[in-house]
Amino acid sequence: MTHSTAPFAHPVRIYWEDTDAGGIVFYANYLKFFERARTEWLRALGFGQQVLRDESGGMFVVSETAVKYHSPARLDDTLIVTAELQTSGKASLTIAQRAYLRADGQADRLLAEGTIRLGWVDSTTLKPGRIPAPVLEALK
Amino acid sequence: MTHSTAPFAHPVRIYWEDTDAGGIVFYANYLKFFERARTEWLRALGFGQQVLRDESGGMFVVSETAVKYHSPARLDDTLIVTAELQTSGKASLTIAQRAYLRADGQADRLLAEGTIRLGWVDSTTLKPGRIPAPVLEALK
Amino acid sequence: MTHSTAPFAHPVRIYWEDTDAGGIVFYANYLKFFERARTEWLRALGFGQQVLRDESGGMFVVSETAVKYHSPARLDDTLIVTAELQTSGKASLTIAQRAYLRADGQADRLLAEGTIRLGWVDSTTLKPGRIPAPVLEALK
Amino acid sequence: MTHSTAPFAHPVRIYWEDTDAGGIVFYANYLKFFERARTEWLRALGFGQQVLRDESGGMFVVSETAVKYHSPARLDDTLIVTAELQTSGKASLTIAQRAYLRADGQADRLLAEGTIRLGWVDSTTLKPGRIPAPVLEALK
Repeated sequence: MTHSTAPFAHPVRIYWEDTDAGGIVFYANYLKFFERARTEWLRALGFGQQVLRDESGGMFVVSETAVKYHSPARLDDTLIVTAELQTSGKASLTIAQRAYLRADGQADRLLAEGTIRLGWVDSTTLKPGRIPAPVLEALK
Repeated sequence: MTHSTAPFAHPVRIYWEDTDAGGIVFYANYLKFFERARTEWLRALGFGQQVLRDESGGMFVVSETAVKYHSPARLDDTLIVTAELQTSGKASLTIAQRAYLRADGQADRLLAEGTIRLGWVDSTTLKPGRIPAPVLEALK
Repeated sequence: MTHSTAPFAHPVRIYWEDTDAGGIVFYANYLKFFERARTEWLRALGFGQQVLRDESGGMFVVSETAVKYHSPARLDDTLIVTAELQTSGKASLTIAQRAYLRADGQADRLLAEGTIRLGWVDSTTLKPGRIPAPVLEALK
Repeated sequence: MTHSTAPFAHPVRIYWEDTDAGGIVFYANYLKFFERARTEWLRALGFGQQVLRDESGGMFVVSETAVKYHSPARLDDTLIVTAELQTSGKASLTIAQRAYLRADGQADRLLAEGTIRLGWVDSTTLKPGRIPAPVLEALK
């Protein structure tokens, strides 16, 4: 799959809540930052998650995460977090994501990168199902 | 209301996830510690929250919190968190809670104290309702 | 003290990370939202917290929080969170904060409100000290 | 490397704070549960992290995480979280971890599994260094 366009990018500011006693951002929080970017990407494509859930009766669930941490972020930093489709099937997707440190308005140093695999499930039974076609189409 | 007995006490260990870049426990997390103690108190009295919700169709929601922070906790500390009923009505309760630093197996220095006001709501509509009588009775 | 101007306001989007199994925003997270707004307020006045800490050797710590929860927020909601000075002394401040549900671009329903008392401490010893005069002046 | 012994196991109770609006445990929190188990494992071997940091001037940082989510956990569930050494070098370790749902006192259904790669860094400079030999020896 080829993207001629840049991946979707979302800014994330680092607050006290994000840091730990090591003086840096707690690594588990990158999964939150990645999710915020995925959520805003879906929203930008016209798919708010609550609306999607109400209308389709289903929701995305995370089935697999893999993250490499290259460099730490600190209090007050601004991160640019990207999201782009890596692979897609009828019932699952893999999204590639990166977090960069923004300096002087530019995405600069790569802090963390990873892949998030999403499955689609019925909101009530949590049983796997097919991703709604319009969502799948929009993400490609 | 008079308690002749000691309040319910629950140990909480401090991990990296609980701390912030100030090197101490992030203050908002005491609300989590207080809730863990309340939950274990209810469980010890025979009321698991999920079971309670499934059986009664209702759940507690927090309507008010007030916390004073006296002294910081740090990585690897063990806290003793207490919970006891302060006041109760048909639709709401106020629980008094304290977090102590445990040293040598004893609850030692008072780190934080507060009151948590709980209301009872229908799980689906979130409308206020009456606390189930057996729960109210057990907490007194 | 009289404010002729509107309080500082900061938008907060609700993500999965902010919600709990009750289907609504976990109450402890309002303390995070309040802090994000306070942090952006200080930043807007020219005081980034990390810079402040590096330059003055001190930092704000939260010594008291009181929050009332009026109405729940849900996934995908946008909140408007406000911050304004309520009282100030040489070593501590009390900030009044509110979270509103934004509908159609307007701050609408009041979801939660509270007061946060901040003290100033030395970053290393955590001993109380005087709030730097320029910070105190700017907040008034 | 062969382990003839069972991996270290640590119980984790699920509270409201751990869940999300999907009604299940928020996936990012498994990284927290895994860390609690690693921390207790190190402590059981005689290495509290704060003491280690004070004495050696260094600390572990997470450089890579990979997690697969098989089945959801819910409010009030008890999980058994395991930790065991998978591979080790002079400057980094990989720990294999699993979270099981405990039923009737037994570790039962596998909920999530993953690997966590840890590097050792100087606490102040965050530059890589060698894991203290006694720690490395104890983990094997």
